[in-house]
Amino acid sequence: MMDHYELVTMPLLLALDAGGTSTRATLTDRTGRCISYARGGSGNPTSSGTEHASAQLVVAAAAAVRAAGVAPSEVTSVLMAMAGMSVNPSTDWITKPMQQSGFEAPIRLESDLLATFFSGTWEGEGYGVVAGTGSAGIRVRSGDVERSADGLGWLLGDVGSGFWIGHQVARAVAAALDGRAGPTALTALLLEDLGVAATGERVLDGRLETLRLVTDALYRLRPVELSRLAPLAFTAADDPTAVSILAEAAEALAGLFNAIASPTVTGPLVLGGSILAQEGLVAESVSAAASASGLVTRTRHVPDGMVGAIVLSLRAAGVEVGGDVYQRIVTTLAELR
Amino acid sequence: MMDHYELVTMPLLLALDAGGTSTRATLTDRTGRCISYARGGSGNPTSSGTEHASAQLVVAAAAAVRAAGVAPSEVTSVLMAMAGMSVNPSTDWITKPMQQSGFEAPIRLESDLLATFFSGTWEGEGYGVVAGTGSAGIRVRSGDVERSADGLGWLLGDVGSGFWIGHQVARAVAAALDGRAGPTALTALLLEDLGVAATGERVLDGRLETLRLVTDALYRLRPVELSRLAPLAFTAADDPTAVSILAEAAEALAGLFNAIASPTVTGPLVLGGSILAQEGLVAESVSAAASASGLVTRTRHVPDGMVGAIVLSLRAAGVEVGGDVYQRIVTTLAELR
Repeated sequence: MMDHYELVTMPLLLALDAGGTSTRATLTDRTGRCISYARGGSGNPTSSGTEHASAQLVVAAAAAVRAAGVAPSEVTSVLMAMAGMSVNPSTDWITKPMQQSGFEAPIRLESDLLATFFSGTWEGEGYGVVAGTGSAGIRVRSGDVERSADGLGWLLGDVGSGFWIGHQVARAVAAALDGRAGPTALTALLLEDLGVAATGERVLDGRLETLRLVTDALYRLRPVELSRLAPLAFTAADDPTAVSILAEAAEALAGLFNAIASPTVTGPLVLGGSILAQEGLVAESVSAAASASGLVTRTRHVPDGMVGAIVLSLRAAGVEVGGDVYQRIVTTLAELR
Repeated sequence: MMDHYELVTMPLLLALDAGGTSTRATLTDRTGRCISYARGGSGNPTSSGTEHASAQLVVAAAAAVRAAGVAPSEVTSVLMAMAGMSVNPSTDWITKPMQQSGFEAPIRLESDLLATFFSGTWEGEGYGVVAGTGSAGIRVRSGDVERSADGLGWLLGDVGSGFWIGHQVARAVAAALDGRAGPTALTALLLEDLGVAATGERVLDGRLETLRLVTDALYRLRPVELSRLAPLAFTAADDPTAVSILAEAAEALAGLFNAIASPTVTGPLVLGGSILAQEGLVAESVSAAASASGLVTRTRHVPDGMVGAIVLSLRAAGVEVGGDVYQRIVTTLAELR
């Protein structure tokens, strides 16, 4: 906690990084020094609904100012990085609950992909590729998104994402139990994950009872929850079915990089998301595509978009963010979390 | 309409074929002579819910007895062929509404796949493969399902089905508009189908505005409704993307036949569903797998499961259905519809 007199005389910037699992909030000053840090639940309005998301964003924001010992009204600007914000241009769903909680500063929404990008670099040009539950890529020029690809959701895109891999795992196990494909080591892993006991060769209505139990359990999930099965493919590293699923994911994510690559943009490649955090074929394939393009100066993996949301909030406040400011954000944030 | 005295002195069998789009009902006597025929809406409790399905089954049943000039109470047995009936062992959802409408006879539920099989043959052994909105196959021995494969629904199976093909069409167009794949003739067909006007090269948030319009329109559908896009793949017969989608569907459905094939079962192969009704690669691939197996005596396509539901209702009433009875069902039903 800082001295109160010092705090109220200088602008206080609040940056939030809203994710599908959790939301992060950091209060900083204009030099990039992080003052306090807090978390909330899912702040993604697309996957969790605007009511739940706004409540969690307020939770995280309020906890961050409380931890700094200041009042919400003393915050001078609020920036929130989140997915799908351009789809929903109205911001009433979040501005009203924030005002009701005492935050008086204007609220600016930014792309979560841009926040991920700036979590790995202060440079204004380069590439970002994220593969978590979903997948998407952006090309950044002059500090802004010039081109984006995929991020089209579980039904129409998100190639190589956690959902995509988990979905293929579920379908491969179903095909194996159904006798349409050979056995796979993924079956035992999936049964364990679902808490389903195999019923051996017991047949019901002309099919294995185990298959019925597995499909019943999987249909009880929301489709997007199949992403929790993605780690099974990495665990079954020697299984030919798992290898083939990951090889297809790797090819798709390399294709995603190639779709955003432009000969006139060189810079870092920032990778985000749980799938690209795993060592192996998938992450290597994206790095290989980046190397082959000759456009990427260095590759870096970031855990989330918090640093980048702070970078974006400083830039929105007119601060030029160079290497020094960026390093101050990274260092002082690391001390808080 | 028959003479009333004749009708009430003989058993009246009511058979229903409940599909996801419409339900068919036929009243017959024990010789297989069809007396009246009527239709209702979707009678599939899995896709439409038990409330809607039971209402439509009652509509079709009531219309069939009304058309014959008899009362519901005069029907001596009711057989309903429908999907997923083994998943939901309780039959209260349908027995109560039928009783409230005056039907006093016991109700028997049977597999829609078995009804499809017996729509094409009176023989008690052979194979049935259906690819409509979903896909599934059965091996029939001694008049009953010995082995079934797929029919696992849009998320986990239904390979090569209308949903599967339509989903691939939607993903392929999204990838093309997203720059992750080359152009395809499917794009123009999909835009026309959705009533979306192409916005040329106009870009919004780093991507084609047309892509946003297409994905918005597609996410407004229930996932299973993507099956309505399957015909586009058949229309774009010369397009490499469409050809590759249909080739994968063909391979999957041939694999479905191979999964149910057994060296100890020879007999007819009965094909059902809109996808296998289309001439070309997909239907040919299943026929080729059947030929290669040496187990199939003849292949026949049927439009629905109505004839087979009647066969099953006669058999449940203790009637042995041979070629003569089968032919009488086919001929007298054709006169009614």
